[in-house]
Amino acid sequence: MLCKSIVYSVQKSPKPRQLHHMPKAPLPGEPAKPYTLTEIPGPRSEALLNEFSKIQQVGSIQYFGDYQRSVGNYLADIDGNVFLDMFMQLSTLALGYNHRSILGALSCGGNQRVIANRPAIGLFPGLEWPCKIQDTLLQPCVAPKGLPCIFTAMCGACSIEHAIQMAFIKYAERHRRGKDFTEEEKESAPFNKPPGCPELSILSFEGGFHGRTFGALALTHYKYIMKIDIPSLQWPIAPYPHYLYPLDQHEKENKEEDARCLEQRSIPFILDEIQTGGGATGRIWAHEYFELNIPPDIVTFSYKMQASGFYHSPEYMPKQPYRVFNAWMGDPIQILLLEAVLQTIEAEDLLTHVCYVGNYLLCQLNALQHEFSDIISSVRGRGFIIAFDTRCRDMKKKLMHLLRNKGIQVGDCGTKSIRLRPCLIFGEYHADIFLEILRDCLQELAEY
Amino acid sequence: MLCKSIVYSVQKSPKPRQLHHMPKAPLPGEPAKPYTLTEIPGPRSEALLNEFSKIQQVGSIQYFGDYQRSVGNYLADIDGNVFLDMFMQLSTLALGYNHRSILGALSCGGNQRVIANRPAIGLFPGLEWPCKIQDTLLQPCVAPKGLPCIFTAMCGACSIEHAIQMAFIKYAERHRRGKDFTEEEKESAPFNKPPGCPELSILSFEGGFHGRTFGALALTHYKYIMKIDIPSLQWPIAPYPHYLYPLDQHEKENKEEDARCLEQRSIPFILDEIQTGGGATGRIWAHEYFELNIPPDIVTFSYKMQASGFYHSPEYMPKQPYRVFNAWMGDPIQILLLEAVLQTIEAEDLLTHVCYVGNYLLCQLNALQHEFSDIISSVRGRGFIIAFDTRCRDMKKKLMHLLRNKGIQVGDCGTKSIRLRPCLIFGEYHADIFLEILRDCLQELAEY
Repeated sequence: MLCKSIVYSVQKSPKPRQLHHMPKAPLPGEPAKPYTLTEIPGPRSEALLNEFSKIQQVGSIQYFGDYQRSVGNYLADIDGNVFLDMFMQLSTLALGYNHRSILGALSCGGNQRVIANRPAIGLFPGLEWPCKIQDTLLQPCVAPKGLPCIFTAMCGACSIEHAIQMAFIKYAERHRRGKDFTEEEKESAPFNKPPGCPELSILSFEGGFHGRTFGALALTHYKYIMKIDIPSLQWPIAPYPHYLYPLDQHEKENKEEDARCLEQRSIPFILDEIQTGGGATGRIWAHEYFELNIPPDIVTFSYKMQASGFYHSPEYMPKQPYRVFNAWMGDPIQILLLEAVLQTIEAEDLLTHVCYVGNYLLCQLNALQHEFSDIISSVRGRGFIIAFDTRCRDMKKKLMHLLRNKGIQVGDCGTKSIRLRPCLIFGEYHADIFLEILRDCLQELAEY
Repeated sequence: MLCKSIVYSVQKSPKPRQLHHMPKAPLPGEPAKPYTLTEIPGPRSEALLNEFSKIQQVGSIQYFGDYQRSVGNYLADIDGNVFLDMFMQLSTLALGYNHRSILGALSCGGNQRVIANRPAIGLFPGLEWPCKIQDTLLQPCVAPKGLPCIFTAMCGACSIEHAIQMAFIKYAERHRRGKDFTEEEKESAPFNKPPGCPELSILSFEGGFHGRTFGALALTHYKYIMKIDIPSLQWPIAPYPHYLYPLDQHEKENKEEDARCLEQRSIPFILDEIQTGGGATGRIWAHEYFELNIPPDIVTFSYKMQASGFYHSPEYMPKQPYRVFNAWMGDPIQILLLEAVLQTIEAEDLLTHVCYVGNYLLCQLNALQHEFSDIISSVRGRGFIIAFDTRCRDMKKKLMHLLRNKGIQVGDCGTKSIRLRPCLIFGEYHADIFLEILRDCLQELAEY
């Protein structure tokens, strides 16, 4: 069973260990505010888009970034515009642009030699690989409780693909009760036929998104444009609770909604934390808030974790090699970047920071929602995973257009929602800039 | 239709542009010969394997590499052994270990800033991205003829996944004859149901391997251990020609075998060049040897190309954005590495070099095959994609064991085959070392 990547548990934050939050000021190198000099996309981005459209579908490209000039929370484009980035490359950049810890890791000669020799990690891992895994993904404060095993991959979709394979393998092993593969299984498997390739399925949530490769896409039930014309699998789909917000004012209704959707099943439980992991919620993993009695069987990661893959419980480890396998099985550079991210999270107490600023942002958005209740509603979130609804699809487009032209980059979500996914060094100072510009835009829409 | 990644056309090589092949000597920094100090894996690798087995299936790991000490064609392990590497990380390292051009690219500060800010390339590509794509993947001497469009991805399996999606989209578009999606298609697609998710299929070759994600695995009909217990799709499987070698002595039989397997079909034609591209055959793409009258519709790449993705013809470009899409859509570091590889291939005329040394190696292997016909047979290949059969699975294991303990790293393949996949800077000098040790091993087996 795959969980939709949204946090939906009780709304409380851990006690801050200390109170040295960042001052209300720009970070070193950051501009004081976002600014735009052109319509977005500007003429240089337009010209480059026009050129690039000959070799690629460019309809998804918003503008071209100038990553040499981008810094901290600010994304510069090639037309001289500078955005306060609250989307951070689909929520994948943990520490914003050109963070000193990331640049430091990449400028180290020893690391460059590690990066230069990308090995097939499943065959010839480097000397430092087990140790680096231990110091990053398996740190006691990082690894999900109860899941001491790891499989690494190149990206999020591959993590999902290999995670569901491991679940199928374990499921079949249980049913085989210690017996070896039969000859019939071995002979039918290369031809995609049962019993070798059995007719098993994964249960996933209505509305969920888990990736775009064939297996991950079969678990995705989001926008039709992602799936239309592509064959799929008749796997079951579970209802997903539709909550009312704010949560503390709708406890009764939401509990009823939970009861409607929840049913305990004795099947492998896979939690997809690709978007929610890496500190985005104010804890390393969103499911730390769930207060589960037993750990999930598998937890996938990617995005802010820089490295991709999944944790799993020891009983899921396949008995034979090459069953869950991949040429690269991840890339050492991803672990070096993760190392820099985790060291910064620790040194700057960024989890406490995310909880604090996330709560501040949610409170202020709730106030705006009351003031502009015709335009926005259902403010919700945890830490830096925040979303709100607009009245309709058209209103969402208008609001995003206004925000972007005033230098705020946010993310699109569903039909009428806007999502905020700032990086972990987003501060109260940046929140205030965003809130002021958002208020201007809402005012403009209200008068319109 | 997916092609099995093996070159099977006529056996002739392009005329060398010049004759300045590398001298018969080690490359700078390389040892004179491979050497082993311990059994393989050595005690340090064994100890680390034992430790690492607690967190991962380690049955596929041969030993741990010391990549700081590896150089050129030589892979050092952590027990002080140094292997002449004729497998090169599953054929993915194009220029061997710690090549100056790769280290040079990684030590450049501007490149480090590009790498530090990995963007969501489908949304906010960097200023330099289109230009870098143009200068690398789309160079006239690099891009496959007739395929000027490109989609980039993180790894080979993802390239296959997105390539088959694009083929399905194009196929459906043709059948729709310019009409828009129907409401029924839009409503059924998120739930995996037809007509939104149609019952279409991909025809792939018996025995082929294309990757380990769900879609790629459904096209893979290789070893059962890759597929057993994992559900699959009832897609059709085409016979693949089983040739007799050497090709020039079996023209008649092989033509009959072709006739048995070939049937022209008016369906999208996808060529998987993930393992064969990047100069491994002595041309950038293996299908350059096929002398096709019309180009394939899609050509996938990864491995030696450093970057992953696929080329496609303009008519395959989806009309709507977000249909073939992915969070990262590749990584700028992969293009920077490809740039270094291509510049080196050009500067050192490595394609000519690969043809020359590949032919030399094939000739010498053919001679050995005559001398030891009880042990090895069916020597075959093109450039640096070479394989031969052993008498049986057991003989293959013995030979690989002997070779490895004398410091030669080769690759496993099928039931009884051994594959050689040296990097592009493998020279006649290295070939001679390999051939001498191989002869010793064959002699030992013959006496046994």
